[in-house]
Amino acid sequence: MPTRREATARIIAAALGAVPAFASADEPHPLVLPAPLGDDRTTLAAALKMRRSTRAYSDRPLSAQILSDLLWAAYGVNRPNGDRTAPYWRHVMLLDLYVAKADGVWLYDPKTHTLLPRLPVDIRAQTGQQDFVATAPVNLIYVAHGERMKGITNDERRLYASVDTAFVGQNVYLYCASVQLGTVFRASVDYPRLERALNLPGTPDAQFVTFAQTVGYPADASQLPQGAN
Amino acid sequence: MPTRREATARIIAAALGAVPAFASADEPHPLVLPAPLGDDRTTLAAALKMRRSTRAYSDRPLSAQILSDLLWAAYGVNRPNGDRTAPYWRHVMLLDLYVAKADGVWLYDPKTHTLLPRLPVDIRAQTGQQDFVATAPVNLIYVAHGERMKGITNDERRLYASVDTAFVGQNVYLYCASVQLGTVFRASVDYPRLERALNLPGTPDAQFVTFAQTVGYPADASQLPQGAN
Repeated sequence: MPTRREATARIIAAALGAVPAFASADEPHPLVLPAPLGDDRTTLAAALKMRRSTRAYSDRPLSAQILSDLLWAAYGVNRPNGDRTAPYWRHVMLLDLYVAKADGVWLYDPKTHTLLPRLPVDIRAQTGQQDFVATAPVNLIYVAHGERMKGITNDERRLYASVDTAFVGQNVYLYCASVQLGTVFRASVDYPRLERALNLPGTPDAQFVTFAQTVGYPADASQLPQGAN
Repeated sequence: MPTRREATARIIAAALGAVPAFASADEPHPLVLPAPLGDDRTTLAAALKMRRSTRAYSDRPLSAQILSDLLWAAYGVNRPNGDRTAPYWRHVMLLDLYVAKADGVWLYDPKTHTLLPRLPVDIRAQTGQQDFVATAPVNLIYVAHGERMKGITNDERRLYASVDTAFVGQNVYLYCASVQLGTVFRASVDYPRLERALNLPGTPDAQFVTFAQTVGYPADASQLPQGAN
């Protein structure tokens, strides 16, 4: 058990991407995110105006605060009853957000606003088929619990899980627009390969990947007004 | 051809829901929406915090300005190249937004920010299977052009069109949260019945309805913090 100071140092180092967060001999620890700020000055209308897709990124890491705000905007708890910033299918919580960074793969736990360590390896290159995914600081991987979706076909499982993912993906788009981050929601994924990397069954009646979404700073300012969609 | 003054009067009356917009003997006219304000004071974070689903509505109509802001936030043009506030599949513009109001069914044209008259009848009750849809002032109906989606299966057409719809639906959620409107994104639709009402083929390789979304003022203030999801 590390002291509080050691734990804090590890958390800060991990957040800064300075050292692998769970490459040490002891057990991996959750990364407690700072509280989401929620005091940004960007209006919804301004974020909607700046909403776009980016396909060229710098490798500049995201600060712990940005990561916190990003994940809260995406799918954070926004009410005392535990509900979220995005709606979800028949009130069944079926979506997990994995965060693939240079220091490993983390699972976002909205209830504690914490990142739980999942894999101490950099799988960013396996999250997509475009080159930029390997070096952008964050790739979100959306994973659905198909086994929680009862009484529907596998095609319907995939459809409704994909719809739930898109609600979250649009939150990510708008948050990124609000702080000049780039992002792109992607179906260009080698699904079996990524699901193997995450040790997921990859079938619609169990856990499977729906989409991925890259987040990072645009490669350069001149890239901002370009890039379609 | 009506005079400019007559046209303006008709537009205002239609926007206020006072008279049917195209029940007169002459040709139906587009309803030119006021420019979207884009100067709201609600931050993105505040909108995310207030994001929720509402399932009880007053019948109070939406003003022309609110309707304008709503449709622009949903799927308006946000860049000179014609791109939108929501991303779309492979850069194929496949989604239409129909607006079912008491005065008829209108098609949103993002390029001109105009509502084009489609049917001079109130089909709100046919947009869903819950009672509130018949009296809430607006039901958005999302229609996909499956025929524009080449080289994929019908299941994939339905899936990607549904995903594009959810991006737009989340914009509607956040806009509504920002101005204290209620909304709910719905799959509880009798699809064949609604597609017949809209004269759509209703097959994935042609035009079909993906989802619907009710918008209106919540039935009463006490309803605001309730209602799940």
